[in-house]
Amino acid sequence: MEIIARFGIFETALTVDKAQAPVAYSAEFAHSGMRVTVPAFRDGDDRYLVRFMPCETGEWSYTIRLGDASSSGTFECVDTGLHGPVMADGTHFRHADGKRYLPFGTTCYAWTHQPQEQQDQTLQTLKTSPFNKIRMCIFPKSMPYNNNEPELFPFHKGKDRKWDVNRPDEHYWRHLDKRIAQLSELGVEADLILFHPYDRWGFAGLSQEESLTYLEYCVVRLGAHHNVWWSLANEFDLLPSKKQKDWEEYAELIGRRDSYCHLLSIHQCIKFYPKRDWMTHCSIQSGDLCRIPEWREEYNLPMIIDECGYEGDIEYSWGNLSAFKMAHRFWYSVTKGTYCTHGETFHREDEVLWWAKGGVLHGESAPRIRFLRQVLESLPESGAPLVRRIITDPNDSVENAGQETHPIVKVMSELTDAERKYWKLRFTPNIIAGKDFRLEYLGYQCRSVTTLDLPEGGKYRVEVLDIWEMTRTTETEGAYGQTRIHLPGKEGIAILTTRLKGEGLE
Amino acid sequence: MEIIARFGIFETALTVDKAQAPVAYSAEFAHSGMRVTVPAFRDGDDRYLVRFMPCETGEWSYTIRLGDASSSGTFECVDTGLHGPVMADGTHFRHADGKRYLPFGTTCYAWTHQPQEQQDQTLQTLKTSPFNKIRMCIFPKSMPYNNNEPELFPFHKGKDRKWDVNRPDEHYWRHLDKRIAQLSELGVEADLILFHPYDRWGFAGLSQEESLTYLEYCVVRLGAHHNVWWSLANEFDLLPSKKQKDWEEYAELIGRRDSYCHLLSIHQCIKFYPKRDWMTHCSIQSGDLCRIPEWREEYNLPMIIDECGYEGDIEYSWGNLSAFKMAHRFWYSVTKGTYCTHGETFHREDEVLWWAKGGVLHGESAPRIRFLRQVLESLPESGAPLVRRIITDPNDSVENAGQETHPIVKVMSELTDAERKYWKLRFTPNIIAGKDFRLEYLGYQCRSVTTLDLPEGGKYRVEVLDIWEMTRTTETEGAYGQTRIHLPGKEGIAILTTRLKGEGLE
Repeated sequence: MEIIARFGIFETALTVDKAQAPVAYSAEFAHSGMRVTVPAFRDGDDRYLVRFMPCETGEWSYTIRLGDASSSGTFECVDTGLHGPVMADGTHFRHADGKRYLPFGTTCYAWTHQPQEQQDQTLQTLKTSPFNKIRMCIFPKSMPYNNNEPELFPFHKGKDRKWDVNRPDEHYWRHLDKRIAQLSELGVEADLILFHPYDRWGFAGLSQEESLTYLEYCVVRLGAHHNVWWSLANEFDLLPSKKQKDWEEYAELIGRRDSYCHLLSIHQCIKFYPKRDWMTHCSIQSGDLCRIPEWREEYNLPMIIDECGYEGDIEYSWGNLSAFKMAHRFWYSVTKGTYCTHGETFHREDEVLWWAKGGVLHGESAPRIRFLRQVLESLPESGAPLVRRIITDPNDSVENAGQETHPIVKVMSELTDAERKYWKLRFTPNIIAGKDFRLEYLGYQCRSVTTLDLPEGGKYRVEVLDIWEMTRTTETEGAYGQTRIHLPGKEGIAILTTRLKGEGLE
Repeated sequence: MEIIARFGIFETALTVDKAQAPVAYSAEFAHSGMRVTVPAFRDGDDRYLVRFMPCETGEWSYTIRLGDASSSGTFECVDTGLHGPVMADGTHFRHADGKRYLPFGTTCYAWTHQPQEQQDQTLQTLKTSPFNKIRMCIFPKSMPYNNNEPELFPFHKGKDRKWDVNRPDEHYWRHLDKRIAQLSELGVEADLILFHPYDRWGFAGLSQEESLTYLEYCVVRLGAHHNVWWSLANEFDLLPSKKQKDWEEYAELIGRRDSYCHLLSIHQCIKFYPKRDWMTHCSIQSGDLCRIPEWREEYNLPMIIDECGYEGDIEYSWGNLSAFKMAHRFWYSVTKGTYCTHGETFHREDEVLWWAKGGVLHGESAPRIRFLRQVLESLPESGAPLVRRIITDPNDSVENAGQETHPIVKVMSELTDAERKYWKLRFTPNIIAGKDFRLEYLGYQCRSVTTLDLPEGGKYRVEVLDIWEMTRTTETEGAYGQTRIHLPGKEGIAILTTRLKGEGLE
């Protein structure tokens, strides 16, 4: 019996007479009471494919219907260590098998549209990078630094020289399949951008019907890869031809056609998409990260700041962050209880910028992002952001029960709702805390001293982390109560407090 | 005939029998049709002073009334190079004699309440500093790092051991007079804070009547110094015992009693004071400088970000900016068409922090602030901030006439008023421009290239300024039209474009 990895792909090809009119194909997969039907999809004019990703180990049986005929078979699904699709888990993420997933993504919008050697180089770079997610477009990209023509396109052209969405180009899709599978081998999630505005070929101008045909093909063909995520758009709001009802139709189609419930988001430039039930998480563009608590309140979903600017030196304001600031934004996001995505845009005369084309990394933020990933992975749980804060100085406050006579609490109560909302955001600290730890990031604050209020009844290790030097230094071990800590007095410092096991009340 | 400097002080003392009941004193000063009446004020139990600052050169006559008696005299007022009080001039400042005044202030709240040698040291530091304004309190200050007792207090105490505001302590005020005069010698404006909340002696708790008595004394006694500014409060909103009508009474009293129309502002912590006719300028506390255009729209006054945070390393979030960030905030403010104030808060076990106590500077921002001051002083005029901007890249925009079909312009038009206001602020560049120059500050953007659009019909010098290294490098001379410029690809870069004299159409 054929052996298929759990979360791997079962695939079988069906050859048809290409002169024949298209017939209905589908396949049903069954396993201990579970029954999943998937459609077949074209892979060339005379070939159809059936694909299925089994999520449970054990024996599966299947029946493939081909017009009036049908064929059957079985396979054995075994655990090979794959963790399966990533899904939302509260405001965090986990794999289908329960393993925690901490997204540390990067951005290479058009890497699969570049020369093959360059794509191989991109994979090589990813292999030694800290990144476990990549934002990438199905359609090629046209904008500054993106002037080269891709080798392959998703569709054949009709006699009218327009794209025929009913005739997908199998060479394009087989290539994309291969790249997604290679990402899987590297443990990288493929955050697939389904539509975007940066187009000179006509893909952004497909009719709604054509767009739906294309989208259904994507979902049926690519959905069997465990590591795909659906991003409805990069900057949906810069595609003025598409209305909200169009985006809703796309989401509805995915909901209906995706048998595996892959993650589904939509990404904006200026105007946020309203919260919808189909959204599994937020994919946000903004460098104004102090608004994270506001978005959290509005969406209450896992949140990735997928575009907070890129490390680089190009002239566009979104592409010239220092390496420090890129790393800072990761730390800032994470200590607000959310996640952040990397990208790199160093000006090059050959126009090969990582953010669009992949290749190699030239910047200095990636090792710092790895350091953060290691720190987070060393924590027992993901923790939750601290929203409230005790008044510790006359200029620092937030609504504190029993402090109504404090001048700041008093003045806060006299503000308009808009002002109050503004100040609540300003007063939110960068702290995540779990049962036995507390991670505070000081951002651009250069403190040389700080006072921690460690709960009595426990003993604590206090570590000082330098996000640039990537050092983690134990400052004190066994402390409790009011504890004065010396800090380096520079930007980019974090403080990790961990409760020592077996100390005090458990 | 006595010689008095223009904008200097004419002063004469009157001795009275201290057992006698207080009588009405006043003095009238006259010069070519101009007639100014000033009250006398107590300078000890048996001594009154009359003070007057002449603003015009030439012969002045005066009559001093002492109960029913009177005495007269004349003096000659001559120009000795003093420029006179600073006043508002549109959204900028100038001296009474017309000379442009660019405020580059610092903060030493309680420097006159420290040991005498330390005060002398503060003056010595100011002498070689770039600062030409100092924020300082009349009342002593009580908060962290401010635990020492001052030597002198503004009032004697009564038999009830409470402050008797009708009995000013002449030692305190003579000392303050001396320090203000010494600041004048250094070309430093004394921005006098009249009330503040950080108090352990009872000054913040004076009744409204007592406060008005104190305030009138300040105005009459100190107003004759050309270099005083009135700051009604540091953080008025953290003095919950004072209502808006109280602050209005203070402003009204100053308007009535100050013969010289010194600058008058009020400074907030959280809640902005509404715009009032008596305000000559804004004195703002905020580190959120992207809101400057919003404040400008609301107040349309000269604006000083008097508290944007301090260079230092203490644990309070308002006191641990890096030197770079302090310098950055100066550049940022100035290229939004406003001004900024320095302060320094490096933790010291002896608690002598410049921000409160003066002494010496330990930081690295002051030389960078001097560099900025030199750059601004080299410009022919103050310039105005650029509010609008041509779309230069797909993620960068603002309301541009004729661009209605541009996707960003379109999405901007679909925003709510609040969102639109937010984005207008985010899109405002850091550029000031005059007739023949344009100064752009790139902030944290690390551009290695940029494209300038220099108007045809002129030729231009393009200089690249490094705010940290304090260098000013001519990148090209005689350029016009679309001009590609190489930049260092680091944070803290500014670009100064100057039209060359005699080139093109004048």
